[in-house]
Amino acid sequence: MAAAAGTTEGVQELPNRRVILKRYVTGFPTEDDMEVVTGTVRLAVPPGSAAVLLKNLYVSCDPYMRGRMTKHDRPSYVPDFVLGEALLNFGVSKVIASEHQDLKVGDLVWGMTGWEEYTLISNPQSLFKISHTDVPLSYYTGVLGMPGLTAWAGFFDVGKPKKGEYVFVSAASGAVGQLVGQLAKLTGCYVVGSAGSDEKVNLLKTKFGFDDAFNYKKEQDLNAALKRYFPQGIDIYFENVGGPMLEAVLSNMRNHGRIPTCGMISQYNLEQPEGVHNLFEIVAKRLRVEGFMVFDYFSQYRKFEEEMVGYLNEGKISYIEDIADGLENAPGALIGLYSGRNVGKQLVAVARE
Amino acid sequence: MAAAAGTTEGVQELPNRRVILKRYVTGFPTEDDMEVVTGTVRLAVPPGSAAVLLKNLYVSCDPYMRGRMTKHDRPSYVPDFVLGEALLNFGVSKVIASEHQDLKVGDLVWGMTGWEEYTLISNPQSLFKISHTDVPLSYYTGVLGMPGLTAWAGFFDVGKPKKGEYVFVSAASGAVGQLVGQLAKLTGCYVVGSAGSDEKVNLLKTKFGFDDAFNYKKEQDLNAALKRYFPQGIDIYFENVGGPMLEAVLSNMRNHGRIPTCGMISQYNLEQPEGVHNLFEIVAKRLRVEGFMVFDYFSQYRKFEEEMVGYLNEGKISYIEDIADGLENAPGALIGLYSGRNVGKQLVAVARE
Repeated sequence: MAAAAGTTEGVQELPNRRVILKRYVTGFPTEDDMEVVTGTVRLAVPPGSAAVLLKNLYVSCDPYMRGRMTKHDRPSYVPDFVLGEALLNFGVSKVIASEHQDLKVGDLVWGMTGWEEYTLISNPQSLFKISHTDVPLSYYTGVLGMPGLTAWAGFFDVGKPKKGEYVFVSAASGAVGQLVGQLAKLTGCYVVGSAGSDEKVNLLKTKFGFDDAFNYKKEQDLNAALKRYFPQGIDIYFENVGGPMLEAVLSNMRNHGRIPTCGMISQYNLEQPEGVHNLFEIVAKRLRVEGFMVFDYFSQYRKFEEEMVGYLNEGKISYIEDIADGLENAPGALIGLYSGRNVGKQLVAVARE
Repeated sequence: MAAAAGTTEGVQELPNRRVILKRYVTGFPTEDDMEVVTGTVRLAVPPGSAAVLLKNLYVSCDPYMRGRMTKHDRPSYVPDFVLGEALLNFGVSKVIASEHQDLKVGDLVWGMTGWEEYTLISNPQSLFKISHTDVPLSYYTGVLGMPGLTAWAGFFDVGKPKKGEYVFVSAASGAVGQLVGQLAKLTGCYVVGSAGSDEKVNLLKTKFGFDDAFNYKKEQDLNAALKRYFPQGIDIYFENVGGPMLEAVLSNMRNHGRIPTCGMISQYNLEQPEGVHNLFEIVAKRLRVEGFMVFDYFSQYRKFEEEMVGYLNEGKISYIEDIADGLENAPGALIGLYSGRNVGKQLVAVARE
């Protein structure tokens, strides 16, 4: 996206560090699949182009990125990354040059950008201007950005919760899970979360106000664990992980339960995903399993943002970030998601302002 | 349900043939799991009881009955059959004795009854009075009964079809499938069905007006077959079979597709159901997989009945039955469902009137 070294007179060029994908991945990704390289960027946008040049402040690490590291024969739901080019994902940036009528130099935005210091965005319609600076800017990669909108839309619009219902959240300390659990508590639900370490379990109970939580890595039998935590069964399962956890949950759902489904992180690095054997539960219990994507809810972003900023300012929602410093640490931060190394929302500070 | 030989003076007793479950089943059921025995029935109902005595005319054979032949540790969504007692299922019957205020001798009803000649129903609220006698009575076990309401509610209420959408129906010549396909055609959809014999495939195309159909037993690769029949992909899959067919369908769904799910006949006789490995398609394509049960739609029965009787009388819906004669042939008719021996809706004529 950043221009190569140009020749136009009077335009300043700067080095531009970027994280590129070196090779497509099968199985578990490693840091070696990526490389931090340095190119250059021209500090200008083509006149009359409606483009903007962004200085990236924070970029987000999100589980779905794994899918873009695979070479697909057929187009996937998000495009594959291009080898040798900067990875792409949501981030928080500052406009440093603009030919776009609604964006001026100095504006703060969030949206899809490159894993690099500077990114030229030819088509900035998908960027959201940041209006609230009374919260940390980095929050726009998480609680006020894509993961926050995912949690809010998935829980309320797909999950259709009612007060008093029993809610289970997997990957519960992650960017989406921590918010789903808190939104469920605000709705008057009983909420249990699962996570992959005792530290995370502790956070769920003490910081995020979950009614209970467990370390799934310590459970021999997920089905038995869920029976223990939900003797009455589960009304809403916010699905982030897939595989054996989904199978155990299906056996513990209540009639007319709902499973908003936005990710299946346990399956992303498997060459052959695990089978789920008890789908007849969907019939027997009249379940609704519904996939959704945050892109379909971008039109509701402002409504969501005001609601969530309100919760944050009133102290009704807590939020934990795990910030890696510098692009050189970005590959490791991304890989860490798939082993659950991060505690809270993982992001990378590219440049602190 | 039928009373044992009584002693009350003046009350006539008759022999009552019945099909009982001899033992609980694991794996594929056989005729030997059932037995036709003869008891007696008293031609009376307890005074002041609100009960009715039914003479059964037709009983229905439905795939879901397999679940009731299993001994469950925990209660299933429908109760297990009781060993030594008559099997239970929907049927068409005539009231021959009544203490119920809304049902009088001679009334024709459909609803849950026994696989026997006479059944005493203590709690007849769940029986529907039959008002249309301009159609064959047996239709109330199918197109105007439980399978018809299943097709109608599942397709319209769960599937939410739009004109021009692509609809795939498995087990398409069965009681539910043949109706779903025709309702889809009436809605202006493009409809393809799968069935297990060339005879059935031919019926789908010539009698039921499907746009196309295929014999799944002749396809080495279901995924490739669906790609051939749906190069554009599938908007609605009416799920009757589960297992590998569901897996192939998931790979061929379009974005925002819907999968109304009311049965998974391919899995009922497996001791370990097959795994479905590509559930991530639910996320990637934002699919809705939704189980439903006809019981939840009984309140809409009269609306459905009027609509469907209209279609039948106008020749807009065709309907094919496979009628076994006599209770002695009922076990074989039921077993035949699981090998696909029936052509059209399978039922048993207990007594023709």
